[in-house]
Amino acid sequence: MKLVVINPNSTQSMTDKIIASARAVAGHGIEIEGRTAHGAPASIEGHFDEVMCAAHLLREVREAETAGADAIVVACFDDPAIGACREIATGPVLGICEAGIKAASMIATSFSIVTTLPRSVPIIEALVREYGLAHLCRRVRSAEIPVLALEEHGSNTRRLVRDEIRRAVEEDGCEAVVLGCAGMSDLTEWLSRETGVPVIDGVTVATKFAEALVGSGLGTSKFGAYATPNRK
Amino acid sequence: MKLVVINPNSTQSMTDKIIASARAVAGHGIEIEGRTAHGAPASIEGHFDEVMCAAHLLREVREAETAGADAIVVACFDDPAIGACREIATGPVLGICEAGIKAASMIATSFSIVTTLPRSVPIIEALVREYGLAHLCRRVRSAEIPVLALEEHGSNTRRLVRDEIRRAVEEDGCEAVVLGCAGMSDLTEWLSRETGVPVIDGVTVATKFAEALVGSGLGTSKFGAYATPNRK
Amino acid sequence: MKLVVINPNSTQSMTDKIIASARAVAGHGIEIEGRTAHGAPASIEGHFDEVMCAAHLLREVREAETAGADAIVVACFDDPAIGACREIATGPVLGICEAGIKAASMIATSFSIVTTLPRSVPIIEALVREYGLAHLCRRVRSAEIPVLALEEHGSNTRRLVRDEIRRAVEEDGCEAVVLGCAGMSDLTEWLSRETGVPVIDGVTVATKFAEALVGSGLGTSKFGAYATPNRK
Amino acid sequence: MKLVVINPNSTQSMTDKIIASARAVAGHGIEIEGRTAHGAPASIEGHFDEVMCAAHLLREVREAETAGADAIVVACFDDPAIGACREIATGPVLGICEAGIKAASMIATSFSIVTTLPRSVPIIEALVREYGLAHLCRRVRSAEIPVLALEEHGSNTRRLVRDEIRRAVEEDGCEAVVLGCAGMSDLTEWLSRETGVPVIDGVTVATKFAEALVGSGLGTSKFGAYATPNRK
Amino acid sequence: MKLVVINPNSTQSMTDKIIASARAVAGHGIEIEGRTAHGAPASIEGHFDEVMCAAHLLREVREAETAGADAIVVACFDDPAIGACREIATGPVLGICEAGIKAASMIATSFSIVTTLPRSVPIIEALVREYGLAHLCRRVRSAEIPVLALEEHGSNTRRLVRDEIRRAVEEDGCEAVVLGCAGMSDLTEWLSRETGVPVIDGVTVATKFAEALVGSGLGTSKFGAYATPNRK
Amino acid sequence: MKLVVINPNSTQSMTDKIIASARAVAGHGIEIEGRTAHGAPASIEGHFDEVMCAAHLLREVREAETAGADAIVVACFDDPAIGACREIATGPVLGICEAGIKAASMIATSFSIVTTLPRSVPIIEALVREYGLAHLCRRVRSAEIPVLALEEHGSNTRRLVRDEIRRAVEEDGCEAVVLGCAGMSDLTEWLSRETGVPVIDGVTVATKFAEALVGSGLGTSKFGAYATPNRK
Repeated sequence: MKLVVINPNSTQSMTDKIIASARAVAGHGIEIEGRTAHGAPASIEGHFDEVMCAAHLLREVREAETAGADAIVVACFDDPAIGACREIATGPVLGICEAGIKAASMIATSFSIVTTLPRSVPIIEALVREYGLAHLCRRVRSAEIPVLALEEHGSNTRRLVRDEIRRAVEEDGCEAVVLGCAGMSDLTEWLSRETGVPVIDGVTVATKFAEALVGSGLGTSKFGAYATPNRK
Repeated sequence: MKLVVINPNSTQSMTDKIIASARAVAGHGIEIEGRTAHGAPASIEGHFDEVMCAAHLLREVREAETAGADAIVVACFDDPAIGACREIATGPVLGICEAGIKAASMIATSFSIVTTLPRSVPIIEALVREYGLAHLCRRVRSAEIPVLALEEHGSNTRRLVRDEIRRAVEEDGCEAVVLGCAGMSDLTEWLSRETGVPVIDGVTVATKFAEALVGSGLGTSKFGAYATPNRK
Repeated sequence: MKLVVINPNSTQSMTDKIIASARAVAGHGIEIEGRTAHGAPASIEGHFDEVMCAAHLLREVREAETAGADAIVVACFDDPAIGACREIATGPVLGICEAGIKAASMIATSFSIVTTLPRSVPIIEALVREYGLAHLCRRVRSAEIPVLALEEHGSNTRRLVRDEIRRAVEEDGCEAVVLGCAGMSDLTEWLSRETGVPVIDGVTVATKFAEALVGSGLGTSKFGAYATPNRK
Repeated sequence: MKLVVINPNSTQSMTDKIIASARAVAGHGIEIEGRTAHGAPASIEGHFDEVMCAAHLLREVREAETAGADAIVVACFDDPAIGACREIATGPVLGICEAGIKAASMIATSFSIVTTLPRSVPIIEALVREYGLAHLCRRVRSAEIPVLALEEHGSNTRRLVRDEIRRAVEEDGCEAVVLGCAGMSDLTEWLSRETGVPVIDGVTVATKFAEALVGSGLGTSKFGAYATPNRK
Repeated sequence: MKLVVINPNSTQSMTDKIIASARAVAGHGIEIEGRTAHGAPASIEGHFDEVMCAAHLLREVREAETAGADAIVVACFDDPAIGACREIATGPVLGICEAGIKAASMIATSFSIVTTLPRSVPIIEALVREYGLAHLCRRVRSAEIPVLALEEHGSNTRRLVRDEIRRAVEEDGCEAVVLGCAGMSDLTEWLSRETGVPVIDGVTVATKFAEALVGSGLGTSKFGAYATPNRK
Repeated sequence: MKLVVINPNSTQSMTDKIIASARAVAGHGIEIEGRTAHGAPASIEGHFDEVMCAAHLLREVREAETAGADAIVVACFDDPAIGACREIATGPVLGICEAGIKAASMIATSFSIVTTLPRSVPIIEALVREYGLAHLCRRVRSAEIPVLALEEHGSNTRRLVRDEIRRAVEEDGCEAVVLGCAGMSDLTEWLSRETGVPVIDGVTVATKFAEALVGSGLGTSKFGAYATPNRK
């Protein structure tokens, strides 16, 4: 089985991190292929960046399909262009927000999300509503850090994320925390240890859920909204 | 006041139709400027087409801003990339789905939507949910016609749309009908006459609502999700 | 076009203020006629006042209809008796709560409302739910001032409203604020300048939206709930 | 204990019917006092009629309070002016829609409502939403009869209601049916026998629930929205 | 009429308290029979305890049915196994959470709930959602006391409950408070006096509502989900 | 990794079928252990059966924990006692309804469910609401077959299920179908082939999702509702 994990922004160091997370959990005999949306913005911080990444992301999906991908993970917490990806894919396509919060809902009765910048909060809140889990989401929080600060060595971002998780537990009374950015993927284990609460990384669970769907014989439904795009 | 109405697909005849609808209702002294997303697909039928149009649409928004647009209407019923448009605009930006259904909710206690292809139905249903009007929307219906068939002279598309509106009134018990495609804009008057029920064209009401917001001194809020995109 | 703006309470100074706001934004050639619900309570603070105003409001609607009103604005944030007004009107009828929050939802992803007395908070919350925008409304707040205090010169009400707006921005993280009383209409510009955030006055946007609906050729649907009342 | 049951329209025969239903179930030692909103329209068919009844209804509530009412039932399925009644009452005030559907939700997992005219359907749907039971309400149906036809001897209205209940059971798969008009109160037993399904009369259950609340030592909360109206 | 009130845990002192509350409000000629689910855990604190009580509770329901119960109250705020009880009962079956919050919604526009342990909060939140009253429930609060502490004389639990109610009123702005544990039943009057706000005891209102449903001629619907269990 | 799949009823042939489905998809090196809730009813058809199974199910969960289970699947579509199972488990616990519909929501924009008896329909509808996917669930349908008929050789149950799936596709316009009973697990492949639409078996996807959660390093959160039961 071949799972393709696409970083929809153009920052290679983020792709490397994401791939490492996916490979760390991939099942026996499963190939993880990483792809970077070269040409896209360096990070996705808002709707505009999402759009500027989307066509590059779709190009990678097409190439992944051609190269025999069994499933695709889109590794950005805004779940950009997931519907479009599903239209051109045959296997399952998973965004890390959807995977992260659905995993949270399987192990806890409530969760909070900790993301990077405040401007992403309403975007994630809208996703949580559409995925149907607003009643379990205590709060979407921002650690007030730009996405690319997560790539800088020696920065104090990991401490800021940890402190925000601790506030989530204390103030929201949540039972689990979902990391709201693919760039936090490498911090998951450290954050779990530091905070004691289950910390969920969307990249990890999206990889495993994609594997699970393929293993269940399921691909994207071609009946209706996700049918192959019409020729003009 | 200058309102820019953008057709996010590349079909010029559709732009012409849309502009005509907007000009027909524009207030005294209001300039309507039409723009076509050249380079985009010829029509938007699904998520993939939306993405392939989006960057072209944003280019037109940027140019409209530079040319002094007071407000922008995006004339496709999927309301593609509205969040991104709002991030780079200063005045209000309105999609025709949002405008159409909010207008419907001001003159009726329920409405149905008649769109082109079945594959657009779930996309519109998700929009209606996020705009908060699912409880008033009796049904999203498809007339089973490709978008570009609306551009062909001598086709029977207008009759298919009319018949679907009649079914909506009879079967759904709706009090108004919203046209679910910008390409139906020129049929509004005829459809109203033929069916007797209020038929709402999103292009028309989006134009007037945009004018209304500007006239009220309102632009897109730059606090939060619609703030100008971050520099990387 | 003739728009009739009705103050459903009997305080003339409030009517004057409302009319001034409506006239300030009315389009070219649009006549704004003000009406006061003489005989009604001096202000609307709760359900009981709403009922005691309603028959007087309907009398004004009937007279406005006879006098050729193209559209009607009901200038009280509780949107009293809107359904009944729509039954006896042919043109559109807009309440200022509905107009205010729908305008907010077009320029921001979230908003808070600042009203007068705490007792109005649950009434407005119920309206926001029924209009379908509860998911975007961060909080309905009260500045703890009686409605008629807004009519007293030299009072510190405008400062109380401003301070509550500042708290809304800071504590709720909202992107826009809707004024929750017609009597705050004259403060809009000052409040916007003082707070920096988009401040939305329902009287203003209801006037412009009513104009927009008429300009789009739309009146109240007479199919169903808003049909002319049955003769007994 | 004294329960006052108010018919908010002016048709005495309907009051008589309602009082008979209330008396038939009143507990030991409970006095049922009937009141008619003289001066109100002869029936309530839509929002306009609701408003035209409301001030008369409130007058009856005030008089009932003065005369020592322990609780009040408003016997119209539109639950007109309930909030206002609660502001001026000290004991509990119950509408028959609220009582009817909450009773249904205690004995069944789903219900349908059968009302008189189609124009009342959206009004009742909005009530069901606000009372929070839309997820259990299969459908609000109309038997297509004017309210006052229920007062005519020899009419076939009871058969029309019965047939609509049978359709509700068969088509909606509902487990109980709520009668959507106070004027159907005298038919409850016959309809239950004819259809076999639990048929719920709002007048009956509102009477008993009002008695239950008083018996539990509860009155209308005077903290917040239902506080006594402010003096001007 | 015979109402059976079942304590689904095995603590007799709690049964005694519950029965006293029910008897204090029972109508003329109504027999209240108390039952204890002997063999069940001593208290219900979470899902596991609910399950361990359920079969014992059902045994008591069966016996109550055989002994001619007209209605049944299940006196635990988690409303354990209510669906199952309804399948094997002919009369109405009421849980005290459902009764308590529905009573609250009849006398106030909002309420908060004060329960015992934090772990019960998400369970009650889920019940409130399913009963359709989440929009009126300001907050579910825990007084941080184990259920059985309510049975200990000389403990300060009543003061802890009172203080939590006071915080609910102040911080949540709620108009009524529902007691979230059957074991608080005997404190209702004292808590009402101390806090001034309407304090609602589920045992009391469930008893009266059960009486009301029976008095209205209603039993559990045997059409659908609550039909008698199938024989295997 | 050891996954324990528990059949909460006592029918061994159903356990065998379930285990076969789980083993068919289990990843490399994953041990699937089947367990039957001996002593429980032979099938779960309604709330009563759920309760009568629950204590037996919990006993099996306890034993599975002792025997080192890494995760547990509860193979009944009513997801009985999942909260209680989670309280006494350390690894993830998944019900097949939750897994089935969450899988459906990852590959399609809408789904219908086909279950056995009509009485299970409202139970499943309530689950779908609580899991947050009611907006994507077109309809819960019953094939009108008792659960145990699925165990009889030579019966026409598989054809009845197939025909109901075809009706779901045609009438509901759904994009995927979820099988609403563990006993249909062995039919999945045949039903997919016969109907062409993605047919989702909850046993299969629950097994794979459980494996995915464990592989992601996640267990049931012990913060809050799913903490280990309190000692009395």
